[in-house]
Amino acid sequence: MWQLFYFPLCPFSRKVQLVLSEKKVPYTLQLAYPWEDDDRFHALNPAGKTPVLHHAERRLVLIDSQAICEYFEETESKSPLIPGSAAARAEVRRLTALFDDGLYGDVTEPLIYEKMKKRLILRQSPDSGVLRAAMRLTHEHLDYLDWLIDNRRWLAGAQLSLADFAAAAQLSVIDYLGGIDWSGHEQSHGWYRVMKSRPSFAPLLSQKMEGLPAPRHYADVNA
Amino acid sequence: MWQLFYFPLCPFSRKVQLVLSEKKVPYTLQLAYPWEDDDRFHALNPAGKTPVLHHAERRLVLIDSQAICEYFEETESKSPLIPGSAAARAEVRRLTALFDDGLYGDVTEPLIYEKMKKRLILRQSPDSGVLRAAMRLTHEHLDYLDWLIDNRRWLAGAQLSLADFAAAAQLSVIDYLGGIDWSGHEQSHGWYRVMKSRPSFAPLLSQKMEGLPAPRHYADVNA
Repeated sequence: MWQLFYFPLCPFSRKVQLVLSEKKVPYTLQLAYPWEDDDRFHALNPAGKTPVLHHAERRLVLIDSQAICEYFEETESKSPLIPGSAAARAEVRRLTALFDDGLYGDVTEPLIYEKMKKRLILRQSPDSGVLRAAMRLTHEHLDYLDWLIDNRRWLAGAQLSLADFAAAAQLSVIDYLGGIDWSGHEQSHGWYRVMKSRPSFAPLLSQKMEGLPAPRHYADVNA
Repeated sequence: MWQLFYFPLCPFSRKVQLVLSEKKVPYTLQLAYPWEDDDRFHALNPAGKTPVLHHAERRLVLIDSQAICEYFEETESKSPLIPGSAAARAEVRRLTALFDDGLYGDVTEPLIYEKMKKRLILRQSPDSGVLRAAMRLTHEHLDYLDWLIDNRRWLAGAQLSLADFAAAAQLSVIDYLGGIDWSGHEQSHGWYRVMKSRPSFAPLLSQKMEGLPAPRHYADVNA
């Protein structure tokens, strides 16, 4: 069986969990905090980053969320998440990279640092200037999401795809950290409620980061 | 014909150029500096980043270097660059991401900021502490490259792959910016000389960033 090394607020582990659930691939979870000395985890991934997916019986170690998703796209025909023509697939991958790199770098990463790492590890107060900049950039990203949803059924086109799961994974962490104000983003909010209601999303809504409670609305699929 | 929007020291544009040349896909180059107002470029990619590949006749716009490389891997059977089983392909993608994200974030990105942007745009001196940290991290990445080459014919395994081109693209920019000291890295140096000697590499060695000359050894395939 596959074993996923993750921590609750790792957006890339969340992306992989969503894909494994959508494709009905069974797996177990193994907590691994990249900032802690964990010999077994670091032996699997010298880069020390989650997610890592390990299959002991098959002696397989998969690293990097996109490499993992492409692997299951190639090996599991159920629920294709990079569907369509080569051009349609390029659009799914463009948007997935935009959320994995752009939304993560602009918003998720600074929020994780300011609100999680400073509180739990460094015992420092968050920098309000950084938080304000992240909130501003969240609105810019949500504006773009609104535009996509105004023009397409799902983010990358007519079909639900990896782009939707990559975006929802980032937004779920941002929401956990109190970084989303949906006002003025009805389209994105509606789309996110639909994503949140999928059975594959339920495990994410129950995963809690110790010492850092989620806001009350976080796990409410109607909020 | 494909038109590639790039700038000479963009490592991701270099990765795409290498892949297009290896697969014998004809293209023309169009200079686009992400930090300048270029309406045509920003209309193609609102995220404002190179590389962007445009095919006017087919009304196709491809964005994100990995999405572009996957597109040509799917549409051009010549010279497969993500070869082998699903597991082998996952290893190519793991390493490609390691170079695109890790090596770029640790070394290429700070060097571009300190040595290119500060000099050409901000008119500031580079921060010697940041440069020292980048040099130290370059050695760590080259140690890992040495280890890969000690254990495999090419970086990701028995076959030349996208991982080799992704690494070489980053290293060529780092080398242009004077950031590589090969001492103690004979294996990586030998591998880089082989990459540098490929016909697909020649255009990169002649691309110059205006106002920022390359060191003398940069274009010498024996250096």
